[in-house]
Amino acid sequence: MRIVTFGEIMLRLSTPRHQRFRQARIMEVEYGGGESNVGVSLANYGQDVRFVSRLPDNDLGDCAIRSLRAAGIDTSHIVRGGKRLGIYFLETGAVQRPSKVIYDREDSSMATTTPGMIDWDAALDGVGWFHWSGITPAVSESAAAVCLEACQAAAARDITISVDLNHRSKLWQYGKTPAEVMPQLVEYCDVIVGGSYEAERYFGIEVVDSTDFEPIARALRQRFPKATKIVTTLRGTISASHNTYTALLWDGERMHSSPTYEITHIVDRVGGGDSFMGGLIHGLITWPDDLSYALRFGVAASTLKHTIPGDVNQVTEGEVIELMEGDGSGRVRR
Amino acid sequence: MRIVTFGEIMLRLSTPRHQRFRQARIMEVEYGGGESNVGVSLANYGQDVRFVSRLPDNDLGDCAIRSLRAAGIDTSHIVRGGKRLGIYFLETGAVQRPSKVIYDREDSSMATTTPGMIDWDAALDGVGWFHWSGITPAVSESAAAVCLEACQAAAARDITISVDLNHRSKLWQYGKTPAEVMPQLVEYCDVIVGGSYEAERYFGIEVVDSTDFEPIARALRQRFPKATKIVTTLRGTISASHNTYTALLWDGERMHSSPTYEITHIVDRVGGGDSFMGGLIHGLITWPDDLSYALRFGVAASTLKHTIPGDVNQVTEGEVIELMEGDGSGRVRR
Amino acid sequence: MRIVTFGEIMLRLSTPRHQRFRQARIMEVEYGGGESNVGVSLANYGQDVRFVSRLPDNDLGDCAIRSLRAAGIDTSHIVRGGKRLGIYFLETGAVQRPSKVIYDREDSSMATTTPGMIDWDAALDGVGWFHWSGITPAVSESAAAVCLEACQAAAARDITISVDLNHRSKLWQYGKTPAEVMPQLVEYCDVIVGGSYEAERYFGIEVVDSTDFEPIARALRQRFPKATKIVTTLRGTISASHNTYTALLWDGERMHSSPTYEITHIVDRVGGGDSFMGGLIHGLITWPDDLSYALRFGVAASTLKHTIPGDVNQVTEGEVIELMEGDGSGRVRR
Amino acid sequence: MRIVTFGEIMLRLSTPRHQRFRQARIMEVEYGGGESNVGVSLANYGQDVRFVSRLPDNDLGDCAIRSLRAAGIDTSHIVRGGKRLGIYFLETGAVQRPSKVIYDREDSSMATTTPGMIDWDAALDGVGWFHWSGITPAVSESAAAVCLEACQAAAARDITISVDLNHRSKLWQYGKTPAEVMPQLVEYCDVIVGGSYEAERYFGIEVVDSTDFEPIARALRQRFPKATKIVTTLRGTISASHNTYTALLWDGERMHSSPTYEITHIVDRVGGGDSFMGGLIHGLITWPDDLSYALRFGVAASTLKHTIPGDVNQVTEGEVIELMEGDGSGRVRR
Amino acid sequence: MRIVTFGEIMLRLSTPRHQRFRQARIMEVEYGGGESNVGVSLANYGQDVRFVSRLPDNDLGDCAIRSLRAAGIDTSHIVRGGKRLGIYFLETGAVQRPSKVIYDREDSSMATTTPGMIDWDAALDGVGWFHWSGITPAVSESAAAVCLEACQAAAARDITISVDLNHRSKLWQYGKTPAEVMPQLVEYCDVIVGGSYEAERYFGIEVVDSTDFEPIARALRQRFPKATKIVTTLRGTISASHNTYTALLWDGERMHSSPTYEITHIVDRVGGGDSFMGGLIHGLITWPDDLSYALRFGVAASTLKHTIPGDVNQVTEGEVIELMEGDGSGRVRR
Amino acid sequence: MRIVTFGEIMLRLSTPRHQRFRQARIMEVEYGGGESNVGVSLANYGQDVRFVSRLPDNDLGDCAIRSLRAAGIDTSHIVRGGKRLGIYFLETGAVQRPSKVIYDREDSSMATTTPGMIDWDAALDGVGWFHWSGITPAVSESAAAVCLEACQAAAARDITISVDLNHRSKLWQYGKTPAEVMPQLVEYCDVIVGGSYEAERYFGIEVVDSTDFEPIARALRQRFPKATKIVTTLRGTISASHNTYTALLWDGERMHSSPTYEITHIVDRVGGGDSFMGGLIHGLITWPDDLSYALRFGVAASTLKHTIPGDVNQVTEGEVIELMEGDGSGRVRR
Repeated sequence: MRIVTFGEIMLRLSTPRHQRFRQARIMEVEYGGGESNVGVSLANYGQDVRFVSRLPDNDLGDCAIRSLRAAGIDTSHIVRGGKRLGIYFLETGAVQRPSKVIYDREDSSMATTTPGMIDWDAALDGVGWFHWSGITPAVSESAAAVCLEACQAAAARDITISVDLNHRSKLWQYGKTPAEVMPQLVEYCDVIVGGSYEAERYFGIEVVDSTDFEPIARALRQRFPKATKIVTTLRGTISASHNTYTALLWDGERMHSSPTYEITHIVDRVGGGDSFMGGLIHGLITWPDDLSYALRFGVAASTLKHTIPGDVNQVTEGEVIELMEGDGSGRVRR
Repeated sequence: MRIVTFGEIMLRLSTPRHQRFRQARIMEVEYGGGESNVGVSLANYGQDVRFVSRLPDNDLGDCAIRSLRAAGIDTSHIVRGGKRLGIYFLETGAVQRPSKVIYDREDSSMATTTPGMIDWDAALDGVGWFHWSGITPAVSESAAAVCLEACQAAAARDITISVDLNHRSKLWQYGKTPAEVMPQLVEYCDVIVGGSYEAERYFGIEVVDSTDFEPIARALRQRFPKATKIVTTLRGTISASHNTYTALLWDGERMHSSPTYEITHIVDRVGGGDSFMGGLIHGLITWPDDLSYALRFGVAASTLKHTIPGDVNQVTEGEVIELMEGDGSGRVRR
Repeated sequence: MRIVTFGEIMLRLSTPRHQRFRQARIMEVEYGGGESNVGVSLANYGQDVRFVSRLPDNDLGDCAIRSLRAAGIDTSHIVRGGKRLGIYFLETGAVQRPSKVIYDREDSSMATTTPGMIDWDAALDGVGWFHWSGITPAVSESAAAVCLEACQAAAARDITISVDLNHRSKLWQYGKTPAEVMPQLVEYCDVIVGGSYEAERYFGIEVVDSTDFEPIARALRQRFPKATKIVTTLRGTISASHNTYTALLWDGERMHSSPTYEITHIVDRVGGGDSFMGGLIHGLITWPDDLSYALRFGVAASTLKHTIPGDVNQVTEGEVIELMEGDGSGRVRR
Repeated sequence: MRIVTFGEIMLRLSTPRHQRFRQARIMEVEYGGGESNVGVSLANYGQDVRFVSRLPDNDLGDCAIRSLRAAGIDTSHIVRGGKRLGIYFLETGAVQRPSKVIYDREDSSMATTTPGMIDWDAALDGVGWFHWSGITPAVSESAAAVCLEACQAAAARDITISVDLNHRSKLWQYGKTPAEVMPQLVEYCDVIVGGSYEAERYFGIEVVDSTDFEPIARALRQRFPKATKIVTTLRGTISASHNTYTALLWDGERMHSSPTYEITHIVDRVGGGDSFMGGLIHGLITWPDDLSYALRFGVAASTLKHTIPGDVNQVTEGEVIELMEGDGSGRVRR
Repeated sequence: MRIVTFGEIMLRLSTPRHQRFRQARIMEVEYGGGESNVGVSLANYGQDVRFVSRLPDNDLGDCAIRSLRAAGIDTSHIVRGGKRLGIYFLETGAVQRPSKVIYDREDSSMATTTPGMIDWDAALDGVGWFHWSGITPAVSESAAAVCLEACQAAAARDITISVDLNHRSKLWQYGKTPAEVMPQLVEYCDVIVGGSYEAERYFGIEVVDSTDFEPIARALRQRFPKATKIVTTLRGTISASHNTYTALLWDGERMHSSPTYEITHIVDRVGGGDSFMGGLIHGLITWPDDLSYALRFGVAASTLKHTIPGDVNQVTEGEVIELMEGDGSGRVRR
Repeated sequence: MRIVTFGEIMLRLSTPRHQRFRQARIMEVEYGGGESNVGVSLANYGQDVRFVSRLPDNDLGDCAIRSLRAAGIDTSHIVRGGKRLGIYFLETGAVQRPSKVIYDREDSSMATTTPGMIDWDAALDGVGWFHWSGITPAVSESAAAVCLEACQAAAARDITISVDLNHRSKLWQYGKTPAEVMPQLVEYCDVIVGGSYEAERYFGIEVVDSTDFEPIARALRQRFPKATKIVTTLRGTISASHNTYTALLWDGERMHSSPTYEITHIVDRVGGGDSFMGGLIHGLITWPDDLSYALRFGVAASTLKHTIPGDVNQVTEGEVIELMEGDGSGRVRR
């Protein structure tokens, strides 16, 4: 099954060795973004992945494409144009000091995409799964419009649609609130990943107890009847260096839950949610009859991501399954 | 004498060791820009320098300020505001492969400065020299308007004004041509650094032979009667690794010329013109009666810049004079 | 209120990535020292700071000054002279392996300062707070004499004086013991930071239980009646990678205590005490009526320092307050 | 037209900054080899390229494939198997000190390929040009046999075949001489790139004057009548840092010659011949009626390669043409 | 007492900063191997050590020798010859992600050593202790034969012989099982370090409870009556970043046990067993009458190794004893 | 023949990539000094070398010893003691910008050596050649006294003595001039390497034409009748990046001269003289009857040094001879 992920890939510039921005004399260069990270995860599991986006026709746009091609992703439907590649600067925290992101993605090629620029007929040809996230409509009004266009095109082709609601407080600067924009987009989705915050703020669902997901999931399901899977991840943040990670999936009847992993020495926490999403989609496609297994695959995948520098989860299906089967001992393989 | 330089300082991200953009896994971080580079040169020679600009109120803006303060520059008149720090990406060439710059400075805090934002009364208080360059009006219409505001304020205080015309073909994207904008700005200047290209395109001066600077200088002098010094630099580009460098100064009566330096193993060519400009201003202030010496100081300073990585000329007055006095042998000092 | 800190700033050369000295093929370069670190912390909180010291008139002395100027510190009262910049080599430990310092600061410009070299009239002009530490009198007899000169000058101007007793067992090599030197210096102090070790060895105070600070604080207060605040920090050293940190302040009537922070993944422990001192002084100046808040500010500041590479605490007042207010979760800010 | 290049891609481990092997504490990692380098050049010019080889089914084999995919090369016909990835260690020389290569490619997956392992029907499907080099038959007897298999398969499909004879004195260790192996392989070729050394030693052609290529070319043409283009490159080696580069092409009637480029500050000389080969094939395909232009394209391409670190020529067609049109001045593009 | 360790030293190429192989653009270079690591530990404690092996006569072989000489090891009995230096690639894991080793040591100079190549008369002259490990006979049949030759020669000279059984699942590829090879080699040994796995698989000892070492030790002692010390290490693997480490020694009458160390922030776990072995041998030689002390020395030494990057334990006897005496607090030494 | 070189080895801290001191955030670490560099050269040619010096008993002293041992040098006669390791900081120049050295070697262990500390009976046992340089007596009066002690001891044993006069203007700070110290030391020497500067200033020889070495050599020979070889090197300094190098040897009857090498792209010029000295001594020992060959060997060796980073000449005898035989083309060896 061919999968399309759609969104913005950015130049990521991160400070090395826990330096603060003011200390950095070099920055590490990578290319990543929520939806492309999901795509690379899926490609690493052997899926046939296409990434759709808009990138500037300059060397930095080329670099982003090269990084996707290295992963085996089909980039032939990326539209070239616009003025600049979005950038995000990352200062890597530790212990009580949080990591810090400076977004510099306004007026990027993706933010200035408008409906009609992407040939969805071609881009969705032969596609069985379409994934997008709440970041894209947060970037600009026109990007939100292209999300709608995409969801409608995918739904018209009976393509399974997943969304990671993925709230970013530093975005949504263009004058509309998520509550005005998101509901009509999420209506098309079969799989929704989100939490109590989005349920309340985006969709007006009353949250009595944010730690009790079942009523929230039920309410989301009622609000978006097409969505057969309502999923949430629960990150325990002991510190920037130590998190716990677990997830829940409501299939309309039953709540599936994963084990909780202790991630005690985080290497790079960015992309943790994307790696869950990639693992979950792979799980739902590969083991469609075992939702618990799919969910656990997503959580184990995400756990491994936290041990890898960069935005992207560089693991194989086999490595995830080893962890699921209980080997988290980290013994040297030799 | 206190000197103000005014313009944009950017985040410079350069590829290491002659890598092309697509090869870079790290980028080297520095903060530079034409006019701040001139300022740092001057501070290195012991001048009292203030840099005026507009920078975003975020960590990257702080970083730019820190780099200026390290050089001993007064940054107290930098206005904070706007959305982003301008960026330029630099791919360092070699031999027949040119260096390549990608500007990402649209909508920067400096580009969105408007008249009234900078308190020129305060910024020019106690100032004897004001320097700007042709890059600032090339960035945006409002930045050009602020240039005009600044020139008028400086002229009203009888401050000596210098300009480096500094054409950048990738700028001037906002709908006006240099010919529409520059003449009224240059009218206020006492020292003009430029070449045949700008003479012809900016000011409509007929250039018969671009290698014969005297008629061009005479015509510029006639066009801008306030300008008592018309200066040009001549860069011979044997390759990206080997240039020659020399300069001419027309004082209205006589053409002063510098020796020509062979720069045979260029380390970093960016900032070569700014280091000339810094050296020239220092020379004109320090040896006002010996224009030839001032000019030669600028050229020797610029020659040394080509041997130093980064945007900025990190040399002392003594080091420049050593080279002027003939010691270019590069013998180890020990 | 202008603050002066006085002491030695050194070239710090540290091995990267937990390497032992014998493994290092590069060393990381920074400039730091107890009292300049305090100064940088204070400047980062927006205080008006001047650093007073003696530095050699060579490139390494210049580098130290540049690092201070970057932080916005007034370096105009640093005296240039002497033969060399003090150096300290740092091997960064981990878990059960301690970090190791090799001092190479004998005969440094600061160690060879003598009374009369520093113009204290000028250096203390307009100053409200003077900070020094027990490291300076440990370096050489003449440096101890300059400490005395400074304390007397500050006291004569009714400047608040703070001291961090800061015992270093590898110093005090010049033939005098702390007990011979320190008492007369500490007499001038309003704020004393120290522990049971210094109380006993420097001032002959009988310590019955080194974990019970109140009797020690009372005895110190009695011995040094000018000192209205007696402070100690308690570092729990589970390992080189995991410490706890807390502090106590005796105001003559009441013992104020801070929460204890668990610092579970230390990035760089050096400068932890200096960052406490900087935070404490900032707290005492900013919230003079809330000694507990001031103390807690110091401890939270120091906790954050442990997450940052280098000698210096690169945090803002806002970041410290965020941690004080309970957010130590290290969630990404984006 | 789809192009296949066939050969071995290796892990290249090179010492940084002109270090000798004994000085290296890190090595720079890249993946390259003569024929894959040709492939990447061609892909960079926009050609549709497939690389055929055999790689081990481990992470290092994956890495090699990722580097090819990044360039947009079709890797779907690479066979996985065998024990190890070939390695070559590179010590980068300077001036009078030559670069030094240690091959560690024995028993690599490619060296142990045997006829029948590669499905040439599939690999050559839709292909118009097939390129191989004299390195592959130098590696092992079975690799030579696979070369023959490939040439026969390509010839049977009327695919244009090119060969770069590319003598390597450290190979040919398996008991056969080039003279025993190469003639039957070269018989199938339409384009032969080689020099007097190979003419004499491989094919027994009498060379009277090794600097006079025409008689050699005529003799090669006579010996291999299918070859309509006989090409040689002439490298002038002033030093490891300064070479000249030029080439000649005999089309059976006329000798075409390129200009000679002075490469005065070589960044990385390895891959210089491969980049010529890639440029030549692109030229012959794109401008089939202008052999001189094709040849000049190859030489200009190779000249640019020498300015880029790594095995591979990271340039576009436009950049090569700029140099061909005379702009070797290396002026900054901004 | 002169000590000989015998085995293979390899080029170790490791990815930096927890990168996966596919992310590495540089690799860190070191030279190490089980038995040479033991040798370096012993030299660091002041022992007189000779390393015996076979290395290729090329620059990489020279590099390995240089690294040993730096440690003060006698390399004069290393035989030069064969085709290549063995290589191992190391991807450093974290938390739940294990480190990963790719061996590329087939056909190395050591693997192709045959009996007769090493002059054991000379190599064992004046030697009191001979150490080998189970890795060497796992590499090739001829290497196993040389092990036998060495053990016989050592035994004939009444040299104490120790072995670290050291199972490596990725080796033993040459057609024989450990059970066929190891028993006759271990017969010569006085000190055996191994675990339940090797007891069962190598020697057919029935293991009822793998956590109960005493019956295993008794059975081994019975099987190999020459062995007066049967030792095992117990590594608790909470994760790749957090292990515990302890050891047991059966002297035929009594079980000696060490304390258990918590290694909570592992820097580099590779070489942990070798550093135990080195510490144990040093302990047995230095404190022959205090087996418990010798054992504890080995465990404390190994604990420190985990805090040091690279294969080798760079600690002194004094540093190990400090830890044994209880100071694991990691307080800065200054 | 065993060779002893005697002098100071220092920690060398150099800025990377042509950075100025103020730009350096890391420094490259090496251990070198004139006489130890000579020793390493000789060891690289296969000579049996012992280095004699005094080093502090700390980790940095150990590091220096490790670097010598790696080269195969006997360090067993290095005396440990004193306070500190000498340091020199190196800023690497380019083109017209000279490299700059900051010495920080006062009060080093070597500078504070006094007669009697070194057991010359043991250190010179079995030695045939003793080498020292003019740097050691320039460091301190007591070091000069130890030089005298050493020369007398060597002369008493009929050991051949060579000296490199090696003037350093930044040394000689202890109150004596070279003219007061050097003559009595040089009297013992058989081989003198120096130039017109030292002849004039050290020995009061009248120099009419500093480019005409013969009269200078004759005068030196007359002044120091034991010296049968008077040698000088002539460095042409076109720039810091481009030198020429040649040498002359007067054997009392005939002037031998070497070819002149153009070193057009210098990698690291430091240690150029030491590598000549090492090559010359090797030449005089190996080809005692062919003084021209010995001289040419020294010059070719030094030429190669300029292409290698660091203080030390990392070349083999074979590599030097290749260059002497005319192959300076720098063709890749593969």
